[in-house]
Amino acid sequence: MADQRLATLDDSIVSRLPSYSKSLFDAKTAKGLTFESIASSLGRSEVAVAAIFYGQATASAEDVDKLASLLDLPKESFSTQLLHGFPDRGRAGPMPPVEPLIYRLYEIVQNYGYAFKAVMNEKFGDGIMSAICFDTKVEKETDAQGAAWVVITLRGKWYALSLFSILLI
Amino acid sequence: MADQRLATLDDSIVSRLPSYSKSLFDAKTAKGLTFESIASSLGRSEVAVAAIFYGQATASAEDVDKLASLLDLPKESFSTQLLHGFPDRGRAGPMPPVEPLIYRLYEIVQNYGYAFKAVMNEKFGDGIMSAICFDTKVEKETDAQGAAWVVITLRGKWYALSLFSILLI
Amino acid sequence: MADQRLATLDDSIVSRLPSYSKSLFDAKTAKGLTFESIASSLGRSEVAVAAIFYGQATASAEDVDKLASLLDLPKESFSTQLLHGFPDRGRAGPMPPVEPLIYRLYEIVQNYGYAFKAVMNEKFGDGIMSAICFDTKVEKETDAQGAAWVVITLRGKWYALSLFSILLI
Amino acid sequence: MADQRLATLDDSIVSRLPSYSKSLFDAKTAKGLTFESIASSLGRSEVAVAAIFYGQATASAEDVDKLASLLDLPKESFSTQLLHGFPDRGRAGPMPPVEPLIYRLYEIVQNYGYAFKAVMNEKFGDGIMSAICFDTKVEKETDAQGAAWVVITLRGKWYALSLFSILLI
Amino acid sequence: MADQRLATLDDSIVSRLPSYSKSLFDAKTAKGLTFESIASSLGRSEVAVAAIFYGQATASAEDVDKLASLLDLPKESFSTQLLHGFPDRGRAGPMPPVEPLIYRLYEIVQNYGYAFKAVMNEKFGDGIMSAICFDTKVEKETDAQGAAWVVITLRGKWYALSLFSILLI
Amino acid sequence: MADQRLATLDDSIVSRLPSYSKSLFDAKTAKGLTFESIASSLGRSEVAVAAIFYGQATASAEDVDKLASLLDLPKESFSTQLLHGFPDRGRAGPMPPVEPLIYRLYEIVQNYGYAFKAVMNEKFGDGIMSAICFDTKVEKETDAQGAAWVVITLRGKWYALSLFSILLI
Amino acid sequence: MADQRLATLDDSIVSRLPSYSKSLFDAKTAKGLTFESIASSLGRSEVAVAAIFYGQATASAEDVDKLASLLDLPKESFSTQLLHGFPDRGRAGPMPPVEPLIYRLYEIVQNYGYAFKAVMNEKFGDGIMSAICFDTKVEKETDAQGAAWVVITLRGKWYALSLFSILLI
Amino acid sequence: MADQRLATLDDSIVSRLPSYSKSLFDAKTAKGLTFESIASSLGRSEVAVAAIFYGQATASAEDVDKLASLLDLPKESFSTQLLHGFPDRGRAGPMPPVEPLIYRLYEIVQNYGYAFKAVMNEKFGDGIMSAICFDTKVEKETDAQGAAWVVITLRGKWYALSLFSILLI
Amino acid sequence: MADQRLATLDDSIVSRLPSYSKSLFDAKTAKGLTFESIASSLGRSEVAVAAIFYGQATASAEDVDKLASLLDLPKESFSTQLLHGFPDRGRAGPMPPVEPLIYRLYEIVQNYGYAFKAVMNEKFGDGIMSAICFDTKVEKETDAQGAAWVVITLRGKWYALSLFSILLI
Amino acid sequence: MADQRLATLDDSIVSRLPSYSKSLFDAKTAKGLTFESIASSLGRSEVAVAAIFYGQATASAEDVDKLASLLDLPKESFSTQLLHGFPDRGRAGPMPPVEPLIYRLYEIVQNYGYAFKAVMNEKFGDGIMSAICFDTKVEKETDAQGAAWVVITLRGKWYALSLFSILLI
Repeated sequence: MADQRLATLDDSIVSRLPSYSKSLFDAKTAKGLTFESIASSLGRSEVAVAAIFYGQATASAEDVDKLASLLDLPKESFSTQLLHGFPDRGRAGPMPPVEPLIYRLYEIVQNYGYAFKAVMNEKFGDGIMSAICFDTKVEKETDAQGAAWVVITLRGKWYALSLFSILLI
Repeated sequence: MADQRLATLDDSIVSRLPSYSKSLFDAKTAKGLTFESIASSLGRSEVAVAAIFYGQATASAEDVDKLASLLDLPKESFSTQLLHGFPDRGRAGPMPPVEPLIYRLYEIVQNYGYAFKAVMNEKFGDGIMSAICFDTKVEKETDAQGAAWVVITLRGKWYALSLFSILLI
Repeated sequence: MADQRLATLDDSIVSRLPSYSKSLFDAKTAKGLTFESIASSLGRSEVAVAAIFYGQATASAEDVDKLASLLDLPKESFSTQLLHGFPDRGRAGPMPPVEPLIYRLYEIVQNYGYAFKAVMNEKFGDGIMSAICFDTKVEKETDAQGAAWVVITLRGKWYALSLFSILLI
Repeated sequence: MADQRLATLDDSIVSRLPSYSKSLFDAKTAKGLTFESIASSLGRSEVAVAAIFYGQATASAEDVDKLASLLDLPKESFSTQLLHGFPDRGRAGPMPPVEPLIYRLYEIVQNYGYAFKAVMNEKFGDGIMSAICFDTKVEKETDAQGAAWVVITLRGKWYALSLFSILLI
Repeated sequence: MADQRLATLDDSIVSRLPSYSKSLFDAKTAKGLTFESIASSLGRSEVAVAAIFYGQATASAEDVDKLASLLDLPKESFSTQLLHGFPDRGRAGPMPPVEPLIYRLYEIVQNYGYAFKAVMNEKFGDGIMSAICFDTKVEKETDAQGAAWVVITLRGKWYALSLFSILLI
Repeated sequence: MADQRLATLDDSIVSRLPSYSKSLFDAKTAKGLTFESIASSLGRSEVAVAAIFYGQATASAEDVDKLASLLDLPKESFSTQLLHGFPDRGRAGPMPPVEPLIYRLYEIVQNYGYAFKAVMNEKFGDGIMSAICFDTKVEKETDAQGAAWVVITLRGKWYALSLFSILLI
Repeated sequence: MADQRLATLDDSIVSRLPSYSKSLFDAKTAKGLTFESIASSLGRSEVAVAAIFYGQATASAEDVDKLASLLDLPKESFSTQLLHGFPDRGRAGPMPPVEPLIYRLYEIVQNYGYAFKAVMNEKFGDGIMSAICFDTKVEKETDAQGAAWVVITLRGKWYALSLFSILLI
Repeated sequence: MADQRLATLDDSIVSRLPSYSKSLFDAKTAKGLTFESIASSLGRSEVAVAAIFYGQATASAEDVDKLASLLDLPKESFSTQLLHGFPDRGRAGPMPPVEPLIYRLYEIVQNYGYAFKAVMNEKFGDGIMSAICFDTKVEKETDAQGAAWVVITLRGKWYALSLFSILLI
Repeated sequence: MADQRLATLDDSIVSRLPSYSKSLFDAKTAKGLTFESIASSLGRSEVAVAAIFYGQATASAEDVDKLASLLDLPKESFSTQLLHGFPDRGRAGPMPPVEPLIYRLYEIVQNYGYAFKAVMNEKFGDGIMSAICFDTKVEKETDAQGAAWVVITLRGKWYALSLFSILLI
Repeated sequence: MADQRLATLDDSIVSRLPSYSKSLFDAKTAKGLTFESIASSLGRSEVAVAAIFYGQATASAEDVDKLASLLDLPKESFSTQLLHGFPDRGRAGPMPPVEPLIYRLYEIVQNYGYAFKAVMNEKFGDGIMSAICFDTKVEKETDAQGAAWVVITLRGKWYALSLFSILLI
């Protein structure tokens, strides 16, 4: 894994994230760990672990213990807010995204948003796919020509719109 | 399928779409067809068919023939631009989306964009997942408690950033 | 009820709403009905009925029957999209709102958003109050001095953030 | 209360709030106090107390005394602006909100704003519900299935539009 | 009054106003009436009358009768929404204003907003000046050099911030 | 005046103002002075003095001398830019304003801007009310019921639009 | 002048201008007149005449008479609003401008705005150059190499900031 | 020149300019120099010199020598980027401008942009007035009544649109 | 060329373009002509011809004659504004672009804008590459693997920044 | 090369770039190196090297070694993120660009975006030109009159839109 590049935290983004983000990323870089290896140690998906690092997800006490040991970080140096507070989400990057990789995901929503809505409405009725009661994973495929494909799975609970029932409690 | 509601085209969105969109949606409503049934007739995924209806995707000559027959529409009434032109994408709805279902997809990009980027970068290197050489599907799952889950699969080719090679041409 | 003013549809907003909105509002005005009386006939809350009129909520077949009879409207003149389609929400007015009454609600979110979040997080954990699985009502109170107070109740299901469970499917 | 997570102040939001916010939140965290317990000590609603912490509300001299004692904070370390100044409201977070929980409240205004206006106008006449002469509370309900519901009550004085009376002064 | 120019309605703004606005302005132009003369007939301030014409204020039954007679307009041609509905305010022009005269008023808020707040807070405490329970008038002064001055009086009720009282009803 | 709260400078706004703003506000707080008392010492209106504190207005040499003595501040600690430079106006707060009190003033411009324009045009011809050659004051009234009213007077010179005279110079 | 191209009105801008704009431009095109020749007939500067055509300036009765005769237009077909109303300025094009020629003027303000301010402040004191009491002209120069130069002269009255005099009337 | 106020650099703008801006302005203030006197020493126009100070223009080696001597500044303290780098223009202030003086210039572009375009097009053909190959000056006039007028001259080379000639290279 | 798809004009973009755009595109579609074949008939580059169709470029009298004959269009049906007027550029599509193909060009400017500037500045000095005195072409290459590459050449005249010479005129 | 000006990093942009940008630019300035000379040493195009300096492109281990030696910089002082991390692109400057040189590139996209799309679609079919699998170079030409021209070549792989194939894996 000598050549393995690692996701690090650009200095110019640090002020938009909770302070433990920098501690976690610095330790990850120092240890030379990928999110895949951390995820495997924590028994969590990679995106989940990355989301914890970016301050977008809650960590359990067990996650924190494992991270402290894996990253060789004193627990108190990063766990106060991560373990005892609540994430303040959505401020990591600008919207529309300027990063090309993230923009491509945004473009999928921009171009196919109504198509997704139409298909889901006909399949499930009126409602939404939850982005809260939600799982996701990223996988790699290689096709017959040897080309790499990214496969992202988004899995969210369906919530039927129940607004305005007759009796309010 | 008496109770089946169908995705229709809100009048207030018509002026943002190519004119064939209205023809296609009106015929679909008149025939009482779901995207699922049209997709199955065309041998295409549902999201693909919905994207054609919303003017976001190209239809082949074969698609057009099948649509004309399925929707009982004179081919010339909708095929000129659909068959012989090119889509002018991305203008169906406002961004950020105001429709709750579409907003939830946008929120996933907003909150987890950097996490997706970090995981993809470590897995594939520097580059992007294509939104052009790209497939997608929507599936329904039911969990043990009988609750419905939406599973969206996004599958795009990985393109490594090759900017600035030594020899140009 | 000679002096009763009625909520009508400003011509300048019509193009942002589905076409049945205008039919419903015009009939309501012609009949001189308040949302309160319609709601009582339909056995639905007033806000629910108003939301149907503004194209923000789904009506059931029973709602449509009652509306047709109450408003003396041929069912087919408004029911196609309302009964058989899905709402395309969120486009009725600009955000930030420019209407003073609606702006006051927006201001509550702007000023007390974080306070609501802090209190809900401590009471319920990490998650959100649903705006989909959701009820609301508007009531009138009169205090000892005879002054009127508006009491809005927002009641949404709590969804705990479950992102990133260990096992995906 | 060993497992009780507490609302804390994300470092990246500190510069948008008055300086006493950080002092109050840090002391609250150190003491392990919820807003519920502080509110109960102060005889104020939880949202009111959280709003004081976020710099959106005024505290009385009595509030300040109780906070100093409860949080074990020297009064002069936080009271100068809180007790003797006036809040400069509305700058805690971006609008539209990016935090999912706060966004859901914003979405309610976006989708049902006109419905609320229509119902209030018919019930009260032309005017607004005050967001200044205003109370609010957050309560928890559990339904028959054991699911949790959030109930937010917004209670504001009704002000009839009196613009342009005949005699000025 | 041969040379008197009159405020008319620019065609390009018509679609942003209720339809009665055009009827009223056209009749006013045809009759050659100023807002001053209409205001004097109605016993209302000029700004109040102009606000009615622009769809920003409610007219009473008496106002409507007088307007019909003064403008020689069949009552039913403009009174339905004006008399029986509620204004949908705030959409007449863009913000920031592009019209130089309106921009100057905006600039006063932009430059002196905090100064007004500081002075009002010290004079009245924490709260706001109402823009709802509100009067205004425009007067003309001529100074010693014969130069004209505009004097605008804004008079609004003071509402003390009462958020978060101890007992909620 | 034991209970008198004073307008202070929120830390989060300091970086948008000239550095002397903070010095002046800190000294004002330390001395426990209202803008009313400073204005009376300087023989200037309260809003004028507040505007000087917020960096929106020029102070004369005499103003500076009086401020230094009144606030017990060494003149050189705040006078360099205030006395010898020119204000860089308009950056104190965001537009649209998020502060409720300032927003109400903005709302008056948003809702009644065209009404003000129509009335001024008919009264004065084509032109603008100056926001530069301009005075303003804030007064307190108490009505028969004991309720407080704010009366703001805006007084600006009228400038007729003289664009495009026949002879240039 | 066979080859003389003329400024015409793009169809896509018509809806943002008063209706007389189209009448005037169409007649100008039909007559093959430049703004220079019209300006010379009216005894007005070219920019002034163009501004009248774009609805940004007032025309006098004499201007209207001359325009009617020059353009062979029945006076009543365009004079109602132009002669008897007041311009509603500033909505002709988007800001920032997208037209390259207009953008260059905007860029001058963007890049040299502070430099202009600094020089004017030192030359005139605190205040503004009026855009209302204002003349302008466009001239053509040819340099020694035969290259063409545009010379725009902007001439506005200086208004010293007089805010906050001691005595308010 | 005892009373001469000088353009200085507001602290709140410093972070948007190159670091030499602050050095130059501080030295200018210390020396009590106007842009007029510096411009006269450098043999450059005042606006040119102000633009150099604001980081919007390039200085020659000779300019730098003269500035160093005039301002009594060690050359190396400000010349590195000014003499050896390239300006990064356009970020000094927000657009639309909030400073009243700069806004008036912006308003001229907003209101008369199309009029300028029409006149230039008819006079010069299709193309633009360069903002790069460009001179400008600010002069003071006094009219018969003793009132001051600002005269700004903008002089730019005309570039005909030559896009798309037949032969490329 | 049976399968050749042609660039057509989406109905939803028509209102943002001059009216001759629709005439030209419709005739082009009816004739089944590509821009390549029209460009070859006109002796102009393809992008130039497309720009004429989209109202972004001027056509010569000769271009118009050839277009009329090639497209079998009566000259008067499209030539009035195209031949005798001036383009009003820049309003064809939204910025940032939502069309994926156009967005990729925008992304190049977003990501490499500063890199282009740095390289051009070092190569040419302080100034700009003209977008007015400018040519462009699009070519197709096929690499050894048979993959297609787009090669866009942008060729603009370099204009050195000459702002602020000593002598004006 | 005594007079050679060099692209440097404006202090006001530093906080938007990764920290190694400043180190690289400072060393480049200290060594007096152009991007041309560095590019030639690295065997990379100039724009590629500038993009690395601005944090928009990845450097190889070999690039880093050469840069360290060329710039006389300890490798560890800049290589951690550059060599082992991934760029976080697109945040160097605002969009729309305010720098005149970069704006001209943006203007080309704004004005000719649809023309490029039309030509590419007809030449290549439905799809995009990649901005990821992409090369670019900047060259200088001198025409017969001795005038300098910039020639930018953009070369990107064509990706046909393959969305929605029949079989998903």
